[in-house]
Amino acid sequence: MSLLEYHSKRAQLIADDRALRIDVVNGERFSEKSRQADVILRRIREEEARSIWAVEHDEVPHPFPGMEFLTGKDIILKTQLFNIITKMPKGALLHVHLDLTVNSTTLLALALQHPSIHICATAQVTPASIKSVNIEFRPLPPGFVPQCISLCLPTYKPGQWIPLRRAREQFDAALGGTEGFDRWVASCLSINPGEAYVTHNNNIRIWDKFRSAARLTGTLVYFAPIWRAYIRQFFEDTITDGVSYIEARINFSPKFMIGPDGEHNVPHKEWLSMFLDVLGEIHGDLRAQGRDDEFVGAKIIYTVIRNCEPEELEWYLNDCIEMKKLFPDIIAGFDLVGDENILRPLKDYLPQLLSFSTLQSSQGLPEHHHIPFIFHAGETLGDGSMADDNLYDALLLGTKRIGHGFSLVKHPKLMSICRERGVALEVCPISNEILRLTASMPMHPLPILINHGVPVALSSDDPSLFQNMGLSFDFFQVLAASDITGLLTLGHIARDSIQYSMLTLEEKARATFKWEERWERFVDEIVKFDGAQRN
Amino acid sequence: MSLLEYHSKRAQLIADDRALRIDVVNGERFSEKSRQADVILRRIREEEARSIWAVEHDEVPHPFPGMEFLTGKDIILKTQLFNIITKMPKGALLHVHLDLTVNSTTLLALALQHPSIHICATAQVTPASIKSVNIEFRPLPPGFVPQCISLCLPTYKPGQWIPLRRAREQFDAALGGTEGFDRWVASCLSINPGEAYVTHNNNIRIWDKFRSAARLTGTLVYFAPIWRAYIRQFFEDTITDGVSYIEARINFSPKFMIGPDGEHNVPHKEWLSMFLDVLGEIHGDLRAQGRDDEFVGAKIIYTVIRNCEPEELEWYLNDCIEMKKLFPDIIAGFDLVGDENILRPLKDYLPQLLSFSTLQSSQGLPEHHHIPFIFHAGETLGDGSMADDNLYDALLLGTKRIGHGFSLVKHPKLMSICRERGVALEVCPISNEILRLTASMPMHPLPILINHGVPVALSSDDPSLFQNMGLSFDFFQVLAASDITGLLTLGHIARDSIQYSMLTLEEKARATFKWEERWERFVDEIVKFDGAQRN
Repeated sequence: MSLLEYHSKRAQLIADDRALRIDVVNGERFSEKSRQADVILRRIREEEARSIWAVEHDEVPHPFPGMEFLTGKDIILKTQLFNIITKMPKGALLHVHLDLTVNSTTLLALALQHPSIHICATAQVTPASIKSVNIEFRPLPPGFVPQCISLCLPTYKPGQWIPLRRAREQFDAALGGTEGFDRWVASCLSINPGEAYVTHNNNIRIWDKFRSAARLTGTLVYFAPIWRAYIRQFFEDTITDGVSYIEARINFSPKFMIGPDGEHNVPHKEWLSMFLDVLGEIHGDLRAQGRDDEFVGAKIIYTVIRNCEPEELEWYLNDCIEMKKLFPDIIAGFDLVGDENILRPLKDYLPQLLSFSTLQSSQGLPEHHHIPFIFHAGETLGDGSMADDNLYDALLLGTKRIGHGFSLVKHPKLMSICRERGVALEVCPISNEILRLTASMPMHPLPILINHGVPVALSSDDPSLFQNMGLSFDFFQVLAASDITGLLTLGHIARDSIQYSMLTLEEKARATFKWEERWERFVDEIVKFDGAQRN
Repeated sequence: MSLLEYHSKRAQLIADDRALRIDVVNGERFSEKSRQADVILRRIREEEARSIWAVEHDEVPHPFPGMEFLTGKDIILKTQLFNIITKMPKGALLHVHLDLTVNSTTLLALALQHPSIHICATAQVTPASIKSVNIEFRPLPPGFVPQCISLCLPTYKPGQWIPLRRAREQFDAALGGTEGFDRWVASCLSINPGEAYVTHNNNIRIWDKFRSAARLTGTLVYFAPIWRAYIRQFFEDTITDGVSYIEARINFSPKFMIGPDGEHNVPHKEWLSMFLDVLGEIHGDLRAQGRDDEFVGAKIIYTVIRNCEPEELEWYLNDCIEMKKLFPDIIAGFDLVGDENILRPLKDYLPQLLSFSTLQSSQGLPEHHHIPFIFHAGETLGDGSMADDNLYDALLLGTKRIGHGFSLVKHPKLMSICRERGVALEVCPISNEILRLTASMPMHPLPILINHGVPVALSSDDPSLFQNMGLSFDFFQVLAASDITGLLTLGHIARDSIQYSMLTLEEKARATFKWEERWERFVDEIVKFDGAQRN
């Protein structure tokens, strides 16, 4: 074979190999300017791989593109590539747990606005104990009289409640005073690099930290007076990052939220009513700022923790239907959440889940308003484990998308079903990495999915725990870790996220139109800026 | 849908999903007794997952099945599952670098038998310096007079050569004396957990340690008086572990081995001649012990480091042909080796590699004796990097197998080519994990390959560096990390490794027949032992 023949065969083989990629299948979708922007970003990526990622940084030995997010974040923030990605229109955020979305510093600030919020600890907080002490929050009624004024006094007894503000003001100067307090509480509400990459460095262990941080966050978020401000903060941050539509999962497992009086008495319909109010406010604000086109709306996926008894699930399914009737435009789906490796598999709930559709009809919901399943499945390293097997049930039960689907790449038949039926995977790169399903982005199976033509949407999952607010960080990690995926690939993924949402056909068309307009402005800016820099 | 209908659909979906697996495609191959043994091993695996892997062990916090090999090895050795796997007939070992096969303690013992072997260090060895000092070995002529008698004396000057034996005898008691010396040298010749999982914990960094340990080992192995004993040791250990045929890669990049006189004067044909001698001795020994059926033979894959200039490669290709003429039954293939991420891609050598076949014909090798390519390719986390792209060239150049092919799972077209043409991947699970392509076995892409019907053979790669002697450890890690793969899967893989070898058709038939006899004895023993235990 001549070299010429060889190279022609080689080009054909590579083309065949990549024929299922979204950026090949829809190759004609974007403008010439998009293509120019893609080339510019590839150049910047290559330059920064050398100038930023191949050199040593203080406190970050041996960095590399797509490295452990919590360690590399400070470097990411310095790159031009990230700066550009923050401006990209991201489309829909389809996998995010509402109660884990606002960064812990902001959440603490919100909590400090409410004198009723108290804190307790499992021991006196000292320089020796601070790393092992566990804390709890609780809103207490106005008449409560604290027995101690500081967590740091030798007289502090485990479990004594202290008003949050006072605990902060009285925090030991040796521990950094109020600033030390803020750092400490924030670290309890999120996962830090030492935990993810040293002390809890595997998928089994890291869930311990996940659970404790999530539980702690929940006690603040599910306090009704914080709930509104919390949702508002989440919307604002997410929209600023270029997300134009949100499907947030709300964990409805607690049947009541805590009211201003400290009692568990706020029912689900109130939560949703507040959600709807805030959504209205956000729309109003954006209109007033002339930013209508940045946001088309938000919906809720009703979720229940998968530790409930199958019989108990019936209550939730009925409740979900009731909420759908009250908020038909808000309830977008139903899901079960929590660590699939140890909690109940979908299989345990088959009788309930198989009759959900009949139940909806019997309760008067017309078929076109039925609540679809949007199941978590395969968020695991297991091979044939019950978490891995959830993928079979999710698809057999007709899931519209798959939350994570990390282990899907092991399943050739399921991959082709997803491809043929257009069942998108909600892939959460940074979440997967911090929960130690993958050690870094270059190890992540996303390129396998993309090359096999399995539809994907990128998501952030639990940004308050992972510190990956918005979608810029996840898009960045994906872009940085590949030599094939480029800005156009991200563009295709972002645009299609709207198609994979639970919006109506008309809403999708409108949202896509708006997205495309923003995309054109975005790539135009990249090309202009690059031209200006080179002149 | 009724529950009954659902479960029937579910079973069908799982069957469809697994239809390409080797243990499904060849489901009828093994006896009923094999199936019983498979069930027994699944039971033991499940029991030990609870009784051994789910409990804490001294110095191994939070173990799990398929965990980091160097940390978990002591636990593996305690399991019944491993004990059984050591007795399994493994078939062919198809990917192993001959100069990195014998454990470092044994290699040191071999070196100590030769008074001409000297050692030097980059600094005086003290408790403070021992972790950072680098060493070298060299055979020196009998007349050499050392300037110092111990590496540990303050008078030791960097680079001074000391006879190895004397350096050992005079090793500082504070450093553990002779035992301390043995431990220290062994640690320089292999990769330890601290390096793999802490100091060099990523695929870029760990190659630094790999290179230094491999270079050091090479200076001993490529000393002709050690070579013979070294090969013999490798054969003996490997056969004892149940391997019945070996295709070892020899790095022929040094054009001469070092002779007893300390000169670089032993040509390639001498190396092969010694190899052939030892092979004959081994066959003789086994015959004498009545163990003929345990070993059918060994061949060599001629390898060159991929840093040589394309023009220089021509010398090696010619040399390889010459060796093939001298040792037609020994030379089984040609390959290029070394870190694909930084050394030359196959693409750089296209003119030479494309004309290799013509070159062989012109030098009188009949076509059926032509030397096949058996290329390393895709041993990388890159996505579209030059190492990843090597997969295209390896297949276009007609490689008979692929060394590693770690990134193949990203390539749908290449996966189907491998499946259709029967191009097996030489998968090296423990090597991949220690070189940080995967953080642990549950993260390894092997199940993706198996479920997609891509042929695989399990290999050990560099057992002296990774301490995974034989094939038992690699088979064990694969078995422990799955709930689907069982003893039958391992049996299919072991049996097929003979089919994917470069043996002739008749040799393959004979080797397979012998393997099957041993397999039956093996499963028979498992079933008998289990029956005896239960009565």
